[in-house]
Amino acid sequence: MNPSQDIRLDFDRRNRMGLEEAILAGSKSVAHLTAILDQAAERKARFLFTRLDQAQFDALPEAHRTRLDYDPLSRTAWFGAPEPLRVQIRVGVVAAGTSDISVVREVTRTLAWYGEPALEITDVGVAGLWRLMERVEELQRLPVVVAVAGMDAALPTVVGGLLPGIVIGVPTSVGYGVAAGGHSALHSMLSSCAAGLVVTNIDNGFGAACAALRVLRSAR
Amino acid sequence: MNPSQDIRLDFDRRNRMGLEEAILAGSKSVAHLTAILDQAAERKARFLFTRLDQAQFDALPEAHRTRLDYDPLSRTAWFGAPEPLRVQIRVGVVAAGTSDISVVREVTRTLAWYGEPALEITDVGVAGLWRLMERVEELQRLPVVVAVAGMDAALPTVVGGLLPGIVIGVPTSVGYGVAAGGHSALHSMLSSCAAGLVVTNIDNGFGAACAALRVLRSAR
Amino acid sequence: MNPSQDIRLDFDRRNRMGLEEAILAGSKSVAHLTAILDQAAERKARFLFTRLDQAQFDALPEAHRTRLDYDPLSRTAWFGAPEPLRVQIRVGVVAAGTSDISVVREVTRTLAWYGEPALEITDVGVAGLWRLMERVEELQRLPVVVAVAGMDAALPTVVGGLLPGIVIGVPTSVGYGVAAGGHSALHSMLSSCAAGLVVTNIDNGFGAACAALRVLRSAR
Amino acid sequence: MNPSQDIRLDFDRRNRMGLEEAILAGSKSVAHLTAILDQAAERKARFLFTRLDQAQFDALPEAHRTRLDYDPLSRTAWFGAPEPLRVQIRVGVVAAGTSDISVVREVTRTLAWYGEPALEITDVGVAGLWRLMERVEELQRLPVVVAVAGMDAALPTVVGGLLPGIVIGVPTSVGYGVAAGGHSALHSMLSSCAAGLVVTNIDNGFGAACAALRVLRSAR
Amino acid sequence: MNPSQDIRLDFDRRNRMGLEEAILAGSKSVAHLTAILDQAAERKARFLFTRLDQAQFDALPEAHRTRLDYDPLSRTAWFGAPEPLRVQIRVGVVAAGTSDISVVREVTRTLAWYGEPALEITDVGVAGLWRLMERVEELQRLPVVVAVAGMDAALPTVVGGLLPGIVIGVPTSVGYGVAAGGHSALHSMLSSCAAGLVVTNIDNGFGAACAALRVLRSAR
Amino acid sequence: MNPSQDIRLDFDRRNRMGLEEAILAGSKSVAHLTAILDQAAERKARFLFTRLDQAQFDALPEAHRTRLDYDPLSRTAWFGAPEPLRVQIRVGVVAAGTSDISVVREVTRTLAWYGEPALEITDVGVAGLWRLMERVEELQRLPVVVAVAGMDAALPTVVGGLLPGIVIGVPTSVGYGVAAGGHSALHSMLSSCAAGLVVTNIDNGFGAACAALRVLRSAR
Amino acid sequence: MNPSQDIRLDFDRRNRMGLEEAILAGSKSVAHLTAILDQAAERKARFLFTRLDQAQFDALPEAHRTRLDYDPLSRTAWFGAPEPLRVQIRVGVVAAGTSDISVVREVTRTLAWYGEPALEITDVGVAGLWRLMERVEELQRLPVVVAVAGMDAALPTVVGGLLPGIVIGVPTSVGYGVAAGGHSALHSMLSSCAAGLVVTNIDNGFGAACAALRVLRSAR
Amino acid sequence: MNPSQDIRLDFDRRNRMGLEEAILAGSKSVAHLTAILDQAAERKARFLFTRLDQAQFDALPEAHRTRLDYDPLSRTAWFGAPEPLRVQIRVGVVAAGTSDISVVREVTRTLAWYGEPALEITDVGVAGLWRLMERVEELQRLPVVVAVAGMDAALPTVVGGLLPGIVIGVPTSVGYGVAAGGHSALHSMLSSCAAGLVVTNIDNGFGAACAALRVLRSAR
Repeated sequence: MNPSQDIRLDFDRRNRMGLEEAILAGSKSVAHLTAILDQAAERKARFLFTRLDQAQFDALPEAHRTRLDYDPLSRTAWFGAPEPLRVQIRVGVVAAGTSDISVVREVTRTLAWYGEPALEITDVGVAGLWRLMERVEELQRLPVVVAVAGMDAALPTVVGGLLPGIVIGVPTSVGYGVAAGGHSALHSMLSSCAAGLVVTNIDNGFGAACAALRVLRSAR
Repeated sequence: MNPSQDIRLDFDRRNRMGLEEAILAGSKSVAHLTAILDQAAERKARFLFTRLDQAQFDALPEAHRTRLDYDPLSRTAWFGAPEPLRVQIRVGVVAAGTSDISVVREVTRTLAWYGEPALEITDVGVAGLWRLMERVEELQRLPVVVAVAGMDAALPTVVGGLLPGIVIGVPTSVGYGVAAGGHSALHSMLSSCAAGLVVTNIDNGFGAACAALRVLRSAR
Repeated sequence: MNPSQDIRLDFDRRNRMGLEEAILAGSKSVAHLTAILDQAAERKARFLFTRLDQAQFDALPEAHRTRLDYDPLSRTAWFGAPEPLRVQIRVGVVAAGTSDISVVREVTRTLAWYGEPALEITDVGVAGLWRLMERVEELQRLPVVVAVAGMDAALPTVVGGLLPGIVIGVPTSVGYGVAAGGHSALHSMLSSCAAGLVVTNIDNGFGAACAALRVLRSAR
Repeated sequence: MNPSQDIRLDFDRRNRMGLEEAILAGSKSVAHLTAILDQAAERKARFLFTRLDQAQFDALPEAHRTRLDYDPLSRTAWFGAPEPLRVQIRVGVVAAGTSDISVVREVTRTLAWYGEPALEITDVGVAGLWRLMERVEELQRLPVVVAVAGMDAALPTVVGGLLPGIVIGVPTSVGYGVAAGGHSALHSMLSSCAAGLVVTNIDNGFGAACAALRVLRSAR
Repeated sequence: MNPSQDIRLDFDRRNRMGLEEAILAGSKSVAHLTAILDQAAERKARFLFTRLDQAQFDALPEAHRTRLDYDPLSRTAWFGAPEPLRVQIRVGVVAAGTSDISVVREVTRTLAWYGEPALEITDVGVAGLWRLMERVEELQRLPVVVAVAGMDAALPTVVGGLLPGIVIGVPTSVGYGVAAGGHSALHSMLSSCAAGLVVTNIDNGFGAACAALRVLRSAR
Repeated sequence: MNPSQDIRLDFDRRNRMGLEEAILAGSKSVAHLTAILDQAAERKARFLFTRLDQAQFDALPEAHRTRLDYDPLSRTAWFGAPEPLRVQIRVGVVAAGTSDISVVREVTRTLAWYGEPALEITDVGVAGLWRLMERVEELQRLPVVVAVAGMDAALPTVVGGLLPGIVIGVPTSVGYGVAAGGHSALHSMLSSCAAGLVVTNIDNGFGAACAALRVLRSAR
Repeated sequence: MNPSQDIRLDFDRRNRMGLEEAILAGSKSVAHLTAILDQAAERKARFLFTRLDQAQFDALPEAHRTRLDYDPLSRTAWFGAPEPLRVQIRVGVVAAGTSDISVVREVTRTLAWYGEPALEITDVGVAGLWRLMERVEELQRLPVVVAVAGMDAALPTVVGGLLPGIVIGVPTSVGYGVAAGGHSALHSMLSSCAAGLVVTNIDNGFGAACAALRVLRSAR
Repeated sequence: MNPSQDIRLDFDRRNRMGLEEAILAGSKSVAHLTAILDQAAERKARFLFTRLDQAQFDALPEAHRTRLDYDPLSRTAWFGAPEPLRVQIRVGVVAAGTSDISVVREVTRTLAWYGEPALEITDVGVAGLWRLMERVEELQRLPVVVAVAGMDAALPTVVGGLLPGIVIGVPTSVGYGVAAGGHSALHSMLSSCAAGLVVTNIDNGFGAACAALRVLRSAR
């Protein structure tokens, strides 16, 4: 069968709700990814790929591979040019440590694709509270803060109690034992004592970035 | 022991992050609730109570009870006057059916406490898609939409694909079998195909309203 | 020990309940699979294999391998000739995207083995509702529709509300975080608001096809 | 507020997909149930209610109560006249014992509402296999069999291996320990070795009946 | 049968490991509780009862009831005199709010039974961090701190990062949705980023107090 | 460090409770396994190894490897001679299909190590009931029957209703979706309607054999 | 409808597999229980009832109630005379404390119904090991020991390591937090280090007694 | 990007709460680990690494690798010199068998890093109780005992009933079936009948050692 026959891309999504379709590469075959890139190239469309493993990327036809801006840490790829970066930073992304950095980068790479720069602060775990306290004032000025955390995920609660803006929690799958897979962090965020904290799926940095974009674009 | 000694309210929270402390009444004794109301009355503070059961309300001293604006459906109470309602509606609240209406009302009562009016649309379950389609245009104009849903929680995904604003999903505990307790709805929302959908804890209408307020206030 | 002694095939199942025994290859050793093929060849029986990994297939004796019609995407193999295809299409198979396509193919390959052609429609995820709406009329004419979906699995609910025929939901294990493994999709389908939606095990395209065949054959 | 404003019934559902909207009463307030009955009476519509507890029924206005045909065992009520019963029986409903009988009755009451008579066989648990064997021939003639079972739910697997028609499993919440709540029965049915068994949510006799009706109506 | 024959108390436990046997009343019949009190009275033994519901207490023979020092909030009872209170406070007990106060009191009542006074600080939830910060110096001087918390249980992590002594986390069952039953708080504490935090079962204030006593007694 | 210092084998277990200590190899390092074999060789003791992977076996020193009777299918190894086989068969081992055969062999290899022969019947799944019925009389004469089953695990219930002897169910991890890992089979067996069915851990063929040996030895 | 039409008792089960059918009363209506007793009285059959709540018992017709030997602690009832008690004790039943005594009594009442006396030892929890050690010799002489335990369920493992006979573990639902409902005790028993421990469903004292009877009867 | 910019170490933690920051290596990239070692070398700081896989270690720059004291069994590494060992042993570490030894070594290596020697006793599983009994007196003299156990985790309960000091349970992920991943052992420890047992996350030997150090240091 012809893989391209299985594909019908939603080229009109941006007009409808403000964001283009993005391609979740993780569970797609290389044949289907290639067919998607073929159609995109033909239509001169631009696309963001998420969860594109290094192995998947390496298996793509070279013609496509050289046109992709691929970041292995966040497993994102840009096909086409990102939007020009705005000057003013409106989104903060905070994390407790370098273990969560691949998810942090999925947030910032998605934001950058849509021209939105971000203030990235890692290593502000609440077990060493002073590191966060030094940065609170900077964060209080931003309308949107994404808090990325695994394990006990205490960071978003503390952040949510200190900032007036919308705080979007992204639980990560980092951890072992009861924290394995990120459900502990997810449940911790959902039952946060900080009023108004909202949450995405585990490791869903892309989703958090899209939520931030929805806030910034519709609030204009 | 004196219950009032166990209580130290956070009268300064509004200055810090824009929203006053709210009192989650559910697991508190009547003695502690009374002590809280005593302190609030003395300080001339205003407070929102959530998850205040009819039985708890009925057991409060009459002096406090008569000063509370209590809504048994949403189990919320206002102590003191709500902020004056803004004229322009900026938040929509949608639900699939009347089973979810107590959570819908927790959202709208919390918003009203902060002076934010809401467009409330119930009975737009996606098994009868035309009912939602008739209202899409109205909803597309709003910067924030709260989607309340139990069972399979397909509504927030469909809504998220149709609207440009931030969509906040609130799973409800309505349902039986695998849907009992709301985990099915929660997981459905978290794994939504609609990019940028964010989620609160099950039945947490208060949290969704606070998130909406954070968006509207910081985005000014 | 002699692997063939562990095997007793149910050559009479078709007479009893209309469908031959199929071989779930996944957890069988190559020695046992070979013994099964030996017995089948000797009895001139025909067999459908499911969940036959490429590695298992490659390890089979060449004599058997060349007689198998193997499809690696669906991991199905036909030993013997499929039944001649009927002319009229009576089954639809719909899916939200190409990530679910291996399960879709398990459905259609099983149907084809029994001579039943299918209308296959992929890429009709409800986050872009118009793609489904364009195909509704075609689907409404079919007595059986199989809806394959992972993640939030909102598709079967929407489909179930639009079509009069029996709708069989197949949850897929595609997804990450709370969607990992397919339980989120399964629970979403089981608690669907669309009355009369029935469900199979996660990734069980074979089972959905057998259910469709039971409907079509006994309803004559 | 006026409860009737929260209600918008889907009077057109039958035209669209063959079955009227049914009212899941369980989580609705008496005020909302009354508003629904008011609208139905005014529109001269007929409605099936499910999960209507005795206490809810008793609290309805007498004018409505006397017009309802209420069965407390199945917690179903008919508002308006059921369709005339067909002569020929096309659906069997089997169960392992009297513990599951309230779910069995939800199936048969829903079928009867749509004019479909059923062969009801209880007490055919597979721990006493001969009781089932005596009835197999009767069941083999029917195009649809609903198998209701709790605990280990071995019955649907055995039935599915003996009959050619579509078999719809309904797990029940009967049981204790690991069987409590019905998840054990649900998982047992979903992982059945009988090819083509399909399953509904726990205790969802209404859903199984609707699936049977979809099969029978679209297969004409 | 004679309930007293089912009972053999461990009057020697204190000699063996430093703490007397305590009676977990929750799942015992009144007849068995009475038999235990009979034996204790006869042996002139002293006993601590935990999880003794008001209804159980009220059903005991009056002779026993008047000899018990019963606290309904913590559901503990002292039979016999507590040990004289030490002068120096060595244990702190902190909690995020009054919802957790029944567990806090189980800790302090158990400690008091063994003559150990405690510094009790409630209402130091991390969503209002300043309330905790004001008390940190007091807490840093204590060798043992028990941190009681439900919901997201961020408090023990923050406390564990600020204090040098052993911190014992007690998750509480307070909460709703994913926090219901306390598993979310438990998992959050177990996966805490604060090194060396140890944890008890949900709502097990008695166990935390015993652990504190083990630390204080063996460390002499 | 010296791995042999970590090892103290229980050479006296047989005297105490009738069965020698067996070595669960799965999670042990090759260094520790070697130290165990060294001690066993020195003491001229005999040992049964379970869950010894091919890779572990291959990494053992050749001197030990040649003295082990290793069966890769069941992952068991005999160090020393098995007890002489009894003539009379007293244990039956039944399974639904060849997918479960590695667990079946763990049962029979453990029995054989203790001199107990077994009647092994595979491929008697209840979806094809006649295959089991042909063997019932043989099984009814045995005091102990081990029923190995994955997926829906309906076999032990049917067997338990047909036989007077003790039936020991062994759930297997074979399966996918909700059956993955064997919990579905385990729960199905635990909630069996067949009175007196007892169960072991998932895939614990060794445990089932030991239980059979306890029955046969103490019942003499 | 006539409840007696839903009932078909298995009067022949004893001939087939050695034990009569027992009636699990818990989820049956009083009307169905009465119909069962009517049939039993008519057939002069004898029956054991389990999980018959005091409220169910009190609601039965007086004629049946006076003929039942009802024990509210174990919720068992005998209809007809139990078999005469054997002289020699062959079964031991041990438990950690009086909290588990209702399950212990379900074991001994079921055994007594079949004429099998039991050695009942409660209050031998392993936290006070000496109490168990005093009784080990008595227990070592018995071919069957049932070990009833909740919470951490360490007792069956210790017992299993000390005795040569078959040990049947019955987890109980006693406990709170992670122990609530008995899953913790169940999993502890299933993963016991004592080889050959077998397990029943949570609180299934009846099942453990039936297993003991199967062992004793077929081993003759 | 420059990995060193993502890193800000907490060089002051020891002053604040008595223990330096430790580096959980498991989920960090080699680039980030190298950046951490660079900073540590520059600041002449000393660091403990945990969960450092052999593959990670091998990929580090040789200059760092030769300065690390790496133990592959416990996956710990010391960068810098450990504190001089105290003479008196104050901590015991017990385990049921060699399967748990990697976690035991994580405890003792962490203790040694802080100069605390330990009494290590492995192979004292309670299925062979005499091995533990021989060592009880030694253990009773120690203020802190860490009990490492997988599977049913009965060891900490027995130990907790025999010793007066604080007992810290560490569940391990060793096991299969219901024990897989260590949740069974964790739940068993949390619901222990031994009063005052406290627990860490699964496989968290590092945390147990830190808890021991907190006890020993603050109790001075």
